[in-house]
Amino acid sequence: MSGNLQWRVARYVDPGETLGAEHFTLHDGDIPSIADGEFLVRTLAFGTSPAQRGYIDGRKADQVPIGDVMRGRSIAVVHESRHPDFSPGDWVNASTGWQQWSVQSIDRPNVQNMNVLSVQKVDNSLRPSTLHLGLLGSAAFTAVHGLHAVGELKAGNTVVVSAAAGGVGSVACRVAKLARARVVGVAGGPEKCRWVTDVLGADACIDYKAGELTEPLLELCPEGVDVFFDNVGGTILNSVLPNLAIGARVVICGYISTDYSADELPGPSNYKYLLRKRASMEGFVIWDHTDRFGEYFEQLRAWYLGGELPAQIEDVSDGIETLPDALRSLFIGANRGIRLVRVGDDSG
Amino acid sequence: MSGNLQWRVARYVDPGETLGAEHFTLHDGDIPSIADGEFLVRTLAFGTSPAQRGYIDGRKADQVPIGDVMRGRSIAVVHESRHPDFSPGDWVNASTGWQQWSVQSIDRPNVQNMNVLSVQKVDNSLRPSTLHLGLLGSAAFTAVHGLHAVGELKAGNTVVVSAAAGGVGSVACRVAKLARARVVGVAGGPEKCRWVTDVLGADACIDYKAGELTEPLLELCPEGVDVFFDNVGGTILNSVLPNLAIGARVVICGYISTDYSADELPGPSNYKYLLRKRASMEGFVIWDHTDRFGEYFEQLRAWYLGGELPAQIEDVSDGIETLPDALRSLFIGANRGIRLVRVGDDSG
Repeated sequence: MSGNLQWRVARYVDPGETLGAEHFTLHDGDIPSIADGEFLVRTLAFGTSPAQRGYIDGRKADQVPIGDVMRGRSIAVVHESRHPDFSPGDWVNASTGWQQWSVQSIDRPNVQNMNVLSVQKVDNSLRPSTLHLGLLGSAAFTAVHGLHAVGELKAGNTVVVSAAAGGVGSVACRVAKLARARVVGVAGGPEKCRWVTDVLGADACIDYKAGELTEPLLELCPEGVDVFFDNVGGTILNSVLPNLAIGARVVICGYISTDYSADELPGPSNYKYLLRKRASMEGFVIWDHTDRFGEYFEQLRAWYLGGELPAQIEDVSDGIETLPDALRSLFIGANRGIRLVRVGDDSG
Repeated sequence: MSGNLQWRVARYVDPGETLGAEHFTLHDGDIPSIADGEFLVRTLAFGTSPAQRGYIDGRKADQVPIGDVMRGRSIAVVHESRHPDFSPGDWVNASTGWQQWSVQSIDRPNVQNMNVLSVQKVDNSLRPSTLHLGLLGSAAFTAVHGLHAVGELKAGNTVVVSAAAGGVGSVACRVAKLARARVVGVAGGPEKCRWVTDVLGADACIDYKAGELTEPLLELCPEGVDVFFDNVGGTILNSVLPNLAIGARVVICGYISTDYSADELPGPSNYKYLLRKRASMEGFVIWDHTDRFGEYFEQLRAWYLGGELPAQIEDVSDGIETLPDALRSLFIGANRGIRLVRVGDDSG
């Protein structure tokens, strides 16, 4: 029985190559049946993450086999259950893969991340389903944890956020504003920059495509940068380092500018300013901090319900057909906020 | 009246040039006379520091004028005094310049460092005078502060120290051993490496001149590096980063490999491991922490008197004539431990 659209891996992505629809094939698979202890779910919404490129990177160790359904988590609704804890209508966050229907079991290990259960129940009174992958999901937790737990953000600090129009970066801009910081975004192009100031409320946004960054940073951060939340690396990181304030914190959340290149790119030669400015640079991985997800969820929910996190931060396209392009958008900077794909009707 | 040998600045050092005797001229100057509130001191011992290169770097703002006595601190004995708090025979740590005799006043600002008084009394029961610039001086404070306050060193940690045979590095090796860490030094050449293990007691020492560092680091630090105390930067830093343990601390004490080059050198492209290893990299300047000098002095004195800090860590030459070569040795790696120059008789 068909009716289960799924994206299968067609070929691996080469070093330096941009991921796209050509790496996958859309297949009309069967809707699977369940055994005792299992339940059948229908996916409502998918998230996207730069880490997903690794699943089809030929150089990595644990890629998805060619021909298999692409790996990925989604919010899904239980359709049929032979497990006592899950009933039809329940919502879950699960490693469903890029398909409409999948069989879940809580005993299955989570291949993507050992720190989270394979299947977690999700509050289905908070709708739409995209919220749980967007403003109340792990990208948002990343922004909160990076700024507060790693960056030790204080009111009145000057914060610079790179990839400020990206998923984590856009939430970081809002969270920093809510902490009463002065926020300067860095984004590519005048349109994105306007979005960062007008929608996210950043005090300013520097267009890195318009020229070098040192002068605008000096002008916009005359007292230096107290917290730099960096998703990008490369030239942007190197340009911010000399303009750090004394005792600054550089939070390394990612380095998308350099991570997918075929060549070894130069490192931040200005790391010397960590000494001159008595500053620190620290990396983190949000999945080490699942014990704090409850706290972050409550804080974000309160902000969301209070109107402090604009819904425009979720950049949603419709239909499972749009998944490869949605993931691709992260690598070409075509997204505006957290890039999500809605694939099913939330009701029922 | 002559009798005051002094080194005057002859010309500035160019980018990429190695500092040496050719930048100075030895002059037989006058022994100065004192006014009310002043006192005349005779220098006993000079320290050396890479920072001193900056005083004759033509690109910097506050160089010593050509023809003036080279800037530098020393331990000196008071010879004659018209200040009520200083008596003949007292020892001081003072900004005397590179000369045998100088006039001091406690009201004079300290041009080298605003955080320390121009003149500080020194306990003359602790001899020889070199101790106060060596095992009980600021280089030793730097090692203690960097490892403990910045590096959060714990017993059982694996510590890597670069420039392990250098001034700060050699003390860092001992201090880390005293904290019951496993210590791996990095130094240039088999002789220095033997010195690091045999005299300093490091568990191992890697000769960076003998080949690449990744393999020896993997072999000697199979569980990864918990604390990297870095004085060097460049290739050494880049090689240690991928071998950090989870949650490691990289302490940036200096970057002598890259700081005096005429060219912009590549930065540590492996800084990405700060994220992968959830690690931090932090710079510090010891002169921000003068409030802790008393505590560090007491600790180091106890270790020294207990025989835990071998006197060989002080690398002393005799005679003011040896000063330019002593400073030069820091840049060509010719020193073994803290490089000092004894210029006078401690007694009387």
